[in-house]
Amino acid sequence: MNKRIATVIAAGLLSASTFSLAETPQNVILIIGDGMDDQQISIARNYLVGSQGRLTLDAMPVRSTAQVLTVDNDDPNKPVYVADSANSATSLATGVITSRGRIATTAKTDQSITTIIEMAQQAGLKTGIVSTASVTDATPASFIAHIDKRFCEDPSMMIDGLMHGRFPIECESYTKANGRSGSISEQLAASNVDVILGGGMQHFDIAAEASDKTVLQQAVDNGFNIVTSVAELENANNDSKLLGLFSPSTMPTLMRGENGRIAEAPEKSVMNHIYKYLGEITPPPVMICEDNPKFASMPTMKQMTDAAISHLDSNQGFFLMIESASIDKASHGRNACGSIGEVQQLNAALDSALAYAETSPNTLIIVTADHGQAAQMIPEVSLFSNAAYGGLPAATPGLIARIKTPEGSIMGVNYATNESFAEEHTGVNVPVFANIVGQDVIAPMITQPDIFTITANHLGLK
Amino acid sequence: MNKRIATVIAAGLLSASTFSLAETPQNVILIIGDGMDDQQISIARNYLVGSQGRLTLDAMPVRSTAQVLTVDNDDPNKPVYVADSANSATSLATGVITSRGRIATTAKTDQSITTIIEMAQQAGLKTGIVSTASVTDATPASFIAHIDKRFCEDPSMMIDGLMHGRFPIECESYTKANGRSGSISEQLAASNVDVILGGGMQHFDIAAEASDKTVLQQAVDNGFNIVTSVAELENANNDSKLLGLFSPSTMPTLMRGENGRIAEAPEKSVMNHIYKYLGEITPPPVMICEDNPKFASMPTMKQMTDAAISHLDSNQGFFLMIESASIDKASHGRNACGSIGEVQQLNAALDSALAYAETSPNTLIIVTADHGQAAQMIPEVSLFSNAAYGGLPAATPGLIARIKTPEGSIMGVNYATNESFAEEHTGVNVPVFANIVGQDVIAPMITQPDIFTITANHLGLK
Repeated sequence: MNKRIATVIAAGLLSASTFSLAETPQNVILIIGDGMDDQQISIARNYLVGSQGRLTLDAMPVRSTAQVLTVDNDDPNKPVYVADSANSATSLATGVITSRGRIATTAKTDQSITTIIEMAQQAGLKTGIVSTASVTDATPASFIAHIDKRFCEDPSMMIDGLMHGRFPIECESYTKANGRSGSISEQLAASNVDVILGGGMQHFDIAAEASDKTVLQQAVDNGFNIVTSVAELENANNDSKLLGLFSPSTMPTLMRGENGRIAEAPEKSVMNHIYKYLGEITPPPVMICEDNPKFASMPTMKQMTDAAISHLDSNQGFFLMIESASIDKASHGRNACGSIGEVQQLNAALDSALAYAETSPNTLIIVTADHGQAAQMIPEVSLFSNAAYGGLPAATPGLIARIKTPEGSIMGVNYATNESFAEEHTGVNVPVFANIVGQDVIAPMITQPDIFTITANHLGLK
Repeated sequence: MNKRIATVIAAGLLSASTFSLAETPQNVILIIGDGMDDQQISIARNYLVGSQGRLTLDAMPVRSTAQVLTVDNDDPNKPVYVADSANSATSLATGVITSRGRIATTAKTDQSITTIIEMAQQAGLKTGIVSTASVTDATPASFIAHIDKRFCEDPSMMIDGLMHGRFPIECESYTKANGRSGSISEQLAASNVDVILGGGMQHFDIAAEASDKTVLQQAVDNGFNIVTSVAELENANNDSKLLGLFSPSTMPTLMRGENGRIAEAPEKSVMNHIYKYLGEITPPPVMICEDNPKFASMPTMKQMTDAAISHLDSNQGFFLMIESASIDKASHGRNACGSIGEVQQLNAALDSALAYAETSPNTLIIVTADHGQAAQMIPEVSLFSNAAYGGLPAATPGLIARIKTPEGSIMGVNYATNESFAEEHTGVNVPVFANIVGQDVIAPMITQPDIFTITANHLGLK
């Protein structure tokens, strides 16, 4: 049979079988690899499955790319070319392009924007959030809360707070005293999200604004069952709302560099300091990635995903956002092995989501990133040297992790966007993957706000 | 009507109409943006059509990604994570993974590998090459020639040649005197490719090995009509083989930085030199991109593409490779505007290819890159500063071009992979685009050797 005809017939059969399943609920699982651009995926692939291997996400049947769009806060008609996780998550959660740092509020005019979770709740669907960051961090927060500054995470930040411990930020106008909804943790505690799992206990185990209770106690009063360990998570019943907080802030990464090492500067000889084309440059020693001992007591992203899906599975349909946060956070900190372990976690969580979709075939699974990140794979032997004569390393002006992969080669991961304490994001468009349910609704190139629209359409919310 | 059923019916109609066109020839146009990873495309998009705009390649109906695969020359079982243009073009041209620097020869064992152009010629199809590099450069060469070192470009390099004017390379064993085929330009001059257009006159207007003729004269003797200007190109008849050489080496780029500027180092205050968290860092002044005066007399990539297609169009079918070389070369030289102009040229050449495919609908058009490149879009105001307090620039340890785009914002393009005279490639997987003809034959993720297989299958060569 002609291959094209066979494809058409197969598509017809698939349609027919889908119709018989029309009674199964419409669900969306949105998996966000924070900072998971194609460099991060390629780096993780080389380490986890080898350069010719395929990650689960590589094998997804639908592939697209998303334009990451940001605007200036003073002039929202003016584009800004590099996003942060707050404005990009706001695009994904609300369909509205905003300015950096904003949690589901509009640029300049500072209006709250209804999120996909709020819309889903309104329509009687179940909702959930899983993150390896603090659940008050920008990505999860943008699906639930509304505030103009992502760093207003808990009541302690609301008066005279310092971002990164150094830059003053103004959160006070968002306090309940000023007629607003208070800090992000307070907004989460007051929410009706069915399941929230991740890190960030320090933002809840703290006195709430103008209250003799902690934010955590407020969450309990609002009907949340609190779990803080793997055992409690696995034994939690599905009858009440669930808030799982497994670490004070960001959850530790699954993997780390050998003995905790991160990317390091090449060592330059005296002659090379005098003139850059002279003298020797010695790259840092090779390392392997190893299990991060701090991760030991943590639930995996897959365990949190399984628990969340079990909590949300019903005839009502659900929206679940799952974030692998430390692809980004580890890249800011030049910790290539940390990012690799987070891609591994995302991949395992995706396996769970795909297995669930086998049993609930109207489940649309979308995997994407919120923005690009600094890490770049660069040559172990410079292209501008001659291996036959010894081969010079690529003399990065930044910091490099030289990682020996299980397949026995050395992979150089370069970080060189900012000499200061952390690396920057990049402005590249980001990959989008989907299961077969996304086939007819995700074009080869979309924008981040389109992901909101696709999600809302699938859930029947528009 | 149900949307899915409508899609199936539409696909059926499309199939039917395709069958009636089964008599039109099977052609492949492979467009390679050298170094055109997603960063390069995003940078060019922002400048050329704005952050919310779409390039022609963004709008292609089929999108995939390709794993870039390289092996070690001493141990071909060992992966190398960053390719050069020679080994990646060899993957595309032959389906065989090889080591860096090799032009259609096997790693370690140094055997010639039959290229798609040689297979097409054997089957009676027409063949062509267009490049904005010297036609002897790695990408075009890998489709026609066979030699283990890409820098053996002409007879002058064959004895005591120096790569980049500094590293000795051994080409002598490939001389005709040693029973081989000689330098790359000599192999091109001896070929039966129907049309070869690009730069590189200096590699032809030079004494051939052991001959009183130049390589160019040898090409004429072999039946090539030589053209060297736009007028000659447009007036060339299609009856004989055509060799167009429009510049001594790489063709100048369409665009350049303001007054020829490229990326520059931020200026650091004395205090900042003492300790990196102190004192001021002043980023280089903003620039615009401008027309490159050196480009004025050059044919555009679109003009070369039109001429090549006109030369190749027949009932026999053809294979045409078109390379936008200086996305890569300008990025090696930290010239962001140069790369942007080359993406613009590629996009315009793609417009021509798509217009041709309208009239010859069995034409498969694939656009891809050979490897990643150094350029990264980084924030104009660091993520780790506070715009409300003035906003610090991202303090790159590398070099940065701050480009004012036509939509009025500033885009930072960072280069920081090697402090030496040129930037490095990166190991990221690269985008793949195709017209609708590629819909059923290009999976969401492929390898570079798969592109050879897809091409060969479409041309009926397997």
